[in-house]
Amino acid sequence: MVESVHRLIAGYKGFRARYYEQRPERMKELAEQGQSPEVMLIACSDSRVEPAVLLDIEPGELFIARNVANLVPPYGPDENPHGTSSAIEFAVRDLKVRHIVVLGHSACGGIQALRQANKGEPSEQGDREFIAPWMKIAEAACPCDAAGNVPGQEDVEQDSIRISLRNLMTFPWISSRVEAGELHLHGWWVDLLAGRLCAVEPNGGAVHDLVVGQGEFGAAE
Amino acid sequence: MVESVHRLIAGYKGFRARYYEQRPERMKELAEQGQSPEVMLIACSDSRVEPAVLLDIEPGELFIARNVANLVPPYGPDENPHGTSSAIEFAVRDLKVRHIVVLGHSACGGIQALRQANKGEPSEQGDREFIAPWMKIAEAACPCDAAGNVPGQEDVEQDSIRISLRNLMTFPWISSRVEAGELHLHGWWVDLLAGRLCAVEPNGGAVHDLVVGQGEFGAAE
Amino acid sequence: MVESVHRLIAGYKGFRARYYEQRPERMKELAEQGQSPEVMLIACSDSRVEPAVLLDIEPGELFIARNVANLVPPYGPDENPHGTSSAIEFAVRDLKVRHIVVLGHSACGGIQALRQANKGEPSEQGDREFIAPWMKIAEAACPCDAAGNVPGQEDVEQDSIRISLRNLMTFPWISSRVEAGELHLHGWWVDLLAGRLCAVEPNGGAVHDLVVGQGEFGAAE
Amino acid sequence: MVESVHRLIAGYKGFRARYYEQRPERMKELAEQGQSPEVMLIACSDSRVEPAVLLDIEPGELFIARNVANLVPPYGPDENPHGTSSAIEFAVRDLKVRHIVVLGHSACGGIQALRQANKGEPSEQGDREFIAPWMKIAEAACPCDAAGNVPGQEDVEQDSIRISLRNLMTFPWISSRVEAGELHLHGWWVDLLAGRLCAVEPNGGAVHDLVVGQGEFGAAE
Repeated sequence: MVESVHRLIAGYKGFRARYYEQRPERMKELAEQGQSPEVMLIACSDSRVEPAVLLDIEPGELFIARNVANLVPPYGPDENPHGTSSAIEFAVRDLKVRHIVVLGHSACGGIQALRQANKGEPSEQGDREFIAPWMKIAEAACPCDAAGNVPGQEDVEQDSIRISLRNLMTFPWISSRVEAGELHLHGWWVDLLAGRLCAVEPNGGAVHDLVVGQGEFGAAE
Repeated sequence: MVESVHRLIAGYKGFRARYYEQRPERMKELAEQGQSPEVMLIACSDSRVEPAVLLDIEPGELFIARNVANLVPPYGPDENPHGTSSAIEFAVRDLKVRHIVVLGHSACGGIQALRQANKGEPSEQGDREFIAPWMKIAEAACPCDAAGNVPGQEDVEQDSIRISLRNLMTFPWISSRVEAGELHLHGWWVDLLAGRLCAVEPNGGAVHDLVVGQGEFGAAE
Repeated sequence: MVESVHRLIAGYKGFRARYYEQRPERMKELAEQGQSPEVMLIACSDSRVEPAVLLDIEPGELFIARNVANLVPPYGPDENPHGTSSAIEFAVRDLKVRHIVVLGHSACGGIQALRQANKGEPSEQGDREFIAPWMKIAEAACPCDAAGNVPGQEDVEQDSIRISLRNLMTFPWISSRVEAGELHLHGWWVDLLAGRLCAVEPNGGAVHDLVVGQGEFGAAE
Repeated sequence: MVESVHRLIAGYKGFRARYYEQRPERMKELAEQGQSPEVMLIACSDSRVEPAVLLDIEPGELFIARNVANLVPPYGPDENPHGTSSAIEFAVRDLKVRHIVVLGHSACGGIQALRQANKGEPSEQGDREFIAPWMKIAEAACPCDAAGNVPGQEDVEQDSIRISLRNLMTFPWISSRVEAGELHLHGWWVDLLAGRLCAVEPNGGAVHDLVVGQGEFGAAE
């Protein structure tokens, strides 16, 4: 078994051979002329949701922020560091991307922690210092009713994408660009078990398939 | 020309064909049993520094946070959302990763903005609301001397990696694991022009090559 | 521009990094235990019809013979060397493959030469020494009528696949295995312009889609 | 487990998504304008020596003939079909390739059969009809001495590459182009266990590394 960090270094050697020695044109241009991606992606840190593999992208195509549960906080600049908002600002104001895609997924650990907390269940994550305040961003997607029930996992995942889309519109230099037709916001959700990619419409809208899954691995189409 | 968003959906179709219909074993196991990556990576949002391409990883291998300039803020839990710290907490305390790699790179736009600001130069980014407070995390890597000079771009990039490595050690559940030998921290920096991958030693240490570049694209070895 | 042969050597370096240093398990097993492919493919030498790219295969999966126009000569052992028949014999009798796929394609240069010759047109290939006798294998797919007309390019391509399927059945150790249900023969034809993959039924049967194309590049589904 | 033929069809779907819907430029150009590869490769049918994977090529780059043991017969046009010679003729005279690479490899089954036959050992392949006459092309690489010994496996593999290089020069339209500097012949041999790629010099020349292996899988450099 190759040790995990050596495996990454070997991976870089392969990248170097292919992108510098074998087909240098693309990286050379990117290194010399800088990036100009048309799309920003906000994705989860989950190792299974690797955007470059899922969307088969090349270097230079996507400006990507990744955090737990692919959340966008509401606009609120102050003297404190805001990682996701900084990435959004750089993408929109400096790089002038034309699309922002919020990409959620099934079986999200952050959403699981939020549901457990809101149900009042004891959880392994009970003593976590950062996860709970961070997941509060998606709080409205996970209300607890009088009987102590919360919405299902996928409902919370998809509704939290809608919250992030709404929060994006609270950034004044985003809403103005969206209204001018210069910037487009997209909510996507991927079902890891079925291999389905869905569009999540904003504001209580529907979820519809962009790429159909088959419900089972290896099923014939 | 294929429009950028349709290109991503087509990319997903290719992923689906390969990972669900053709070789379903790996994604099926990941979807059913959850993730268990051994390594967390903190990388820049820059579209040219696409970790899955640079390190040739498969889904399930790396838990990844991406923000502007791959920065780690110092430990400071409170009721506010902290995206990068949440991702680090989830990786270390829930997933129990054994390595954290901070991956920086040449020609970093966030570091460029920091250098311009500290030199007192007017910059396009002068009116940015989030970038400046975010880049303050790396402030100590970019002191301005009496003559108004700041260190070179690559020096600031590499020293800011050292700051992030130090900041990681301010998280009590990181320093205890590092001291117990259960968790290992790595600073890496990639030279986009030369295709070189370097290790950045902490605390004023050296920078040495992990994978040698050739200084020129397409050069024979 | 990287010179074509250096590009191949650089390509090998990338292969080496990935398959020997990064993920050695598969090649190590193949190198130590030998090959055991389940499928033999007979494909054209055409550089555009690269089976490993078209079918996304890994080392060890397909035993492949490639010649001009993916032809199988009829059974006829003698003391002369027969390259394609040797490959078929090794695949069937030594490796005991369970499937043979004859993969044809549109715009085949060998078929073009055959059609021109049979129409009596002068051709660039008029003085060729090997192409004409080789393409005679597919002669019956390209009859010239009294008016000097021959069937269309795609008809000849598809019918020549049927000839190869029939010729495979003239090998006694193939027909016996096919009749015993131990070996299965398949005729496939790929439309390079539309991106369509079709099954060609034997003996005058139909052509039907295995993977639908869209008739245009980049068209939305 | 996905059945082997369905796996190929799923692989084609992935190719279609990537090369027709996602990045159609390259295949569109190839389909419309035809192929113009600069290099012809003569490789073994062995499933482990998959040239597109070993050399990381894209459609359009290599015109490839594959047969058992990557052999080139001597020039000898007549009315019989000659598959490998036809492919060579098409590559050199029609496509005007500038390089021909003969790519051999370790643990070649065809060479094993030749060595056993020449040692007089009974072999599984004893009753083969096509392999023995085909492997006669490499006969001079495998002389049996008075004690019944033949050269080692790798020596025969490498010397048979030299025979193919010599046979290529018996084609008059090859030798004239080589002498005019318009066409270049290369002999390469890959060591599957060590991951080494070597150049085999013609006419009893040396074997030297093009890409160094490490002798062991996963070894650090």
